[in-house]
Amino acid sequence: MRYVDLNCDMGESFGAYTLGRDAEIMPYITSANIACGFHAGDAGTMRKTVKLALEHGVGIGAHPGLQDLIGFGRRKMDISPREAYDIVVYQIGALWGFVRAEGGAMQHVKAHGELYNMAAVNPALAEAIAEAVYQVDPNLILLGLAGSELVKAGKKAGLRTASEVFSDRTYQSDGSLTSRRQPDSMITDDQEALKQVIRMVNEGKVLSRQQVDVNIQADTICIHGDGVHALAFARTINDSLAQAGITVQPIGKTWAE
Amino acid sequence: MRYVDLNCDMGESFGAYTLGRDAEIMPYITSANIACGFHAGDAGTMRKTVKLALEHGVGIGAHPGLQDLIGFGRRKMDISPREAYDIVVYQIGALWGFVRAEGGAMQHVKAHGELYNMAAVNPALAEAIAEAVYQVDPNLILLGLAGSELVKAGKKAGLRTASEVFSDRTYQSDGSLTSRRQPDSMITDDQEALKQVIRMVNEGKVLSRQQVDVNIQADTICIHGDGVHALAFARTINDSLAQAGITVQPIGKTWAE
Amino acid sequence: MRYVDLNCDMGESFGAYTLGRDAEIMPYITSANIACGFHAGDAGTMRKTVKLALEHGVGIGAHPGLQDLIGFGRRKMDISPREAYDIVVYQIGALWGFVRAEGGAMQHVKAHGELYNMAAVNPALAEAIAEAVYQVDPNLILLGLAGSELVKAGKKAGLRTASEVFSDRTYQSDGSLTSRRQPDSMITDDQEALKQVIRMVNEGKVLSRQQVDVNIQADTICIHGDGVHALAFARTINDSLAQAGITVQPIGKTWAE
Amino acid sequence: MRYVDLNCDMGESFGAYTLGRDAEIMPYITSANIACGFHAGDAGTMRKTVKLALEHGVGIGAHPGLQDLIGFGRRKMDISPREAYDIVVYQIGALWGFVRAEGGAMQHVKAHGELYNMAAVNPALAEAIAEAVYQVDPNLILLGLAGSELVKAGKKAGLRTASEVFSDRTYQSDGSLTSRRQPDSMITDDQEALKQVIRMVNEGKVLSRQQVDVNIQADTICIHGDGVHALAFARTINDSLAQAGITVQPIGKTWAE
Repeated sequence: MRYVDLNCDMGESFGAYTLGRDAEIMPYITSANIACGFHAGDAGTMRKTVKLALEHGVGIGAHPGLQDLIGFGRRKMDISPREAYDIVVYQIGALWGFVRAEGGAMQHVKAHGELYNMAAVNPALAEAIAEAVYQVDPNLILLGLAGSELVKAGKKAGLRTASEVFSDRTYQSDGSLTSRRQPDSMITDDQEALKQVIRMVNEGKVLSRQQVDVNIQADTICIHGDGVHALAFARTINDSLAQAGITVQPIGKTWAE
Repeated sequence: MRYVDLNCDMGESFGAYTLGRDAEIMPYITSANIACGFHAGDAGTMRKTVKLALEHGVGIGAHPGLQDLIGFGRRKMDISPREAYDIVVYQIGALWGFVRAEGGAMQHVKAHGELYNMAAVNPALAEAIAEAVYQVDPNLILLGLAGSELVKAGKKAGLRTASEVFSDRTYQSDGSLTSRRQPDSMITDDQEALKQVIRMVNEGKVLSRQQVDVNIQADTICIHGDGVHALAFARTINDSLAQAGITVQPIGKTWAE
Repeated sequence: MRYVDLNCDMGESFGAYTLGRDAEIMPYITSANIACGFHAGDAGTMRKTVKLALEHGVGIGAHPGLQDLIGFGRRKMDISPREAYDIVVYQIGALWGFVRAEGGAMQHVKAHGELYNMAAVNPALAEAIAEAVYQVDPNLILLGLAGSELVKAGKKAGLRTASEVFSDRTYQSDGSLTSRRQPDSMITDDQEALKQVIRMVNEGKVLSRQQVDVNIQADTICIHGDGVHALAFARTINDSLAQAGITVQPIGKTWAE
Repeated sequence: MRYVDLNCDMGESFGAYTLGRDAEIMPYITSANIACGFHAGDAGTMRKTVKLALEHGVGIGAHPGLQDLIGFGRRKMDISPREAYDIVVYQIGALWGFVRAEGGAMQHVKAHGELYNMAAVNPALAEAIAEAVYQVDPNLILLGLAGSELVKAGKKAGLRTASEVFSDRTYQSDGSLTSRRQPDSMITDDQEALKQVIRMVNEGKVLSRQQVDVNIQADTICIHGDGVHALAFARTINDSLAQAGITVQPIGKTWAE
C-alpha cells in the first residue's frame, strides 16, 4: 500500500484582508500549513484555521515565514542562522498556543516562501531551522523540498522528515525544481501533472526536463489553496490518487504506522 | 512564615533598541514578565531573556500586551474580548516556544500596560484573558492587580492567581490604586514605600489616602527594571523583606508548597 | 446650479492582499480618499491609486488612519492630540510624495475610520488634525462629518472644509448619525437613500428618525467601494443626481469656482 | 576655499525607545539624515528632529530605509527597483510633511543601511532611487558613496549629487571601501582618520590599503551619532577641518554658491 499526504498553505488572511478559500479546500487536504503572523495570518485567523483543521481531521503544521508582511515572506532577506532559529521557535510556539487551546496536537512544520527556498540550499540556515523545530518538540515532522538541505538537516537533527513534491512543477536532472524564470518550469496540463505525481509516489521517480529519470522521495504533495482552479484540482488529485491505489492521509499518521 | 514574590517586566528590548537593565536586575527578582513581541520584545530578546531567567532560577511569565509597538502597549485600545483572547493565546504560545526550547517551564502570565489596566476593571475582558490562559495551560498562574476583575476572573476560570501590589503607589479606600493623574499617587520616599509593602505582606492591610485601613492580598510585588534608581531599590527591597522575616521566592514555588 | 462631490475610500490593498474594486468604481466618483499605509494601503498601492485617480480627473485626498493595520483603523485608540497631529502630518506627506511624483496636486484630507469618528466629537483631537492639515498645506480641503467638531475645527484653523453626508445612514434630530448599534441606522432601500441624499443637497435638510426636519450641509457624499452592490449603486447615484439637476464634481473644483 | 559637509544619521528613536544623542551632536554637523519610520524613527521623532535641525541651521535630509524595523534596515532584502522607488517616494514624502509643517525646506536624500549599500553597486536599484528623488523634487541633492552607482545614477537623472566619504574607513585601490569583514577596514586612530579626511577634501585623493593613491570626491563626511566617542570626535573633526582651512557648511549651501 502506498501513502501520500496532501499539504496546503492555510490561514493566510490578515485583519480585514481575506486570502485563500480555506473552508472549501480543507476537506480535500490532509495537512494544513498555517501561517503564524509574520508573512501572513493573525491571531484570530490562526484560531479559526486550527479549529477548521481539527474538524476535518487535517494534520496541523506551523508555517513560519520571514518577518515581511508586505512582501508576503517571498522576498529574500539576509538573515543569520540565529535569526532563522529565533523566528521559527517564536512562530511554532505562537501556533502551538492555539493548537493547545483547541485541544489538538501539532503534526509538522513547513517553512514558508523564501525561508523555505533559502533553507533548501543553505545548510547553515537549514540546520538552524531543524534545530529550532527539534528544540521546541522533537516529535514534530519537518517538511521540506525533496532532496533539499532542509530535509538533510532535519534527519541529522534527529527529526522525522517529509519530502515534498510538486505536481505542477518540472524537475531538473539533479532533482531540483526548474526555476520559475525558465519558460518550462510549470506543468499546466492537469493530466500531465497527475501522471507525474502518481509516478513520483508509486515509483519514486520523475522524468526531468532533460528526459532523464531521477529518483525522488514523495511523502507529501503541495496543493494550492487560492485561484479559481484550486478547488477543482484538489478534488481531481484526490480522485486520481485513489484510482491509482494510493491512500491519501496525514503524514503524521503514515509515520506513526 | 510569610512569602512574597518580586516580579519585574523584562525582555523589552527590540531589534537595535535596548531597554531595561535585565542582566543587573535579574538576580534581585523571583519572577520575570517577559515581553512577547507585541508591545515590546522580539524573538531574539525572548530567547536571551528566558535563558537569563533560567540561569537565575527566576519564574518565567508571559507578558502579553496590546499590538501597539509604537505606543508600548500603553494606549487604551478598544479591543473585543475575543481579540483579547486571541492575542493572549498567541503571545503565551510564542514565549512557550522559547521556554520549551531552553528546557524550562512557564510559571505565570501577567498582562502588560493598558491590557492589564483594562482587564482590572472590565469583567468581559478579564474573563477572556483568564480563559485564554486556562485553555493554553491550566497550571499557569494568572497575575493581576490585587482586588481586580482579572484576579476574580482567574479564580472563576479555575486558575491559581497571584495578587499584585505596588510599593511605590498609594491606594484608595476601595482598594484601588490612586490614579496617576492625582498628585499623591506615587510614594517617592523609599522607607515609606518599604513600610507599606511589608505591612501589606505581613498584615494584609494598607492605609488608604483617606486614612482608612483596607484589606489587600499581597502575593507579588511589582519592581521596576529601568531608571537609574531601579537596581538600588531592587537590592534594598530584598534586604528589607528579609529583615522583616519575609521569604522572597517565585510565586510558583509558594503555590506548590 | 447645485453641486455635490462623490467621495470613496480607495487604495486599501496591502501587499499580497487586494481590497476594493478601485478601477471599477473610479469612473463614478469625483474624490478619492487614498489610504496612506497606517490602517491600510502600501507604497506601491498608493502610487497606482494616485495614477488611477489622475487618469479619471478624480480629486486626490489623503486618508490618514490610526496605526492599527490589523484592526483596519476601526478600533478606538486613546491617542493624544499631539499623536494625532503627528500621524496626520506623516500620512499626508507620504501621499504627497506620490502625488508630486505623478505630477498631480492634492485636493483634500479625510480622516479614516475611528480617527474620523473620534475627531467628529472630540474638539482637542479635531483641532490637532485641522492644525496638521493647515501646517502641511493651508490650501487643502478638510473633509468631515457634517456638523462635526472636525468641520468646526477646520473652519477655525482657516481651512476650507467639506461637509460629508451619507446616503445610506439615518439621522437624529441633533444632526448626528444614528448609531450603527440601533436597528434603524441604515437605509437599505436604494430609492429612499437617493431621495434623502438629493434632498440634503437641494434643500439642505434631512428628516430625522424622530420625523423632525434638520438642517444639514451636504458638500460631499460618501460612496462605498467594496461589496457586490457598490458598483451598481455608484452608477445609480450618478444618474439620480444628474436627473435631479445636481452637478457631480470634485469639491476642489466647486470651491474654486 | 574648500568646503565640506558633515552629515549624520538622526531621528532613529522609536516610540519608547531612544537611540542616538541627537541634541548633543546637532551643533557639530551641517546635514542631518532623518529616519522616516521604515528602519527607524516615528512620526513624533521626525517632527522633533526636523525642529532641532532647523534650530541649528542644519540641512535636512530624508533617510529612507528598508521596511525592516527589527533589522534596522541593515539586512539585505531582495526588493525590486519598483519597490525601491516606491519606498523612497513614500519616505521622502512623509518627512516632507514635517519639514513643510515646520516651515523649512528639504535639502537632500540619503539612503540608509543596506539600501545605501545595495544602491552603491546595483545600477537598476540606483536608478530607481534616483528617479524617485527626482520625481518628488528635482532640486533635492542625492547623497551617495563616492564613486558609487548611486552617484552615477543621480547625475544621469539630472540631480545634483554629493559624494560621501568616511573618515574612519579604509579604501581599496578601486576607490571602494574595504569590507568590514577585513581586519583592516577601520581606522581606529583619530589622528590618522582626520589626516585621511582632510587629504580627501583638499587633494581629492586617498591612499588605498595597497598603498596606491586613488582619486576620490569628498563633498560630505559621514559622522556617527551614537557611541560614547561620537560627541568628542564630532568636536575634533570640526576643529581639525577649520585648522586645515576647510569651511564646514551644508552641502545645499555649497551647491548654491
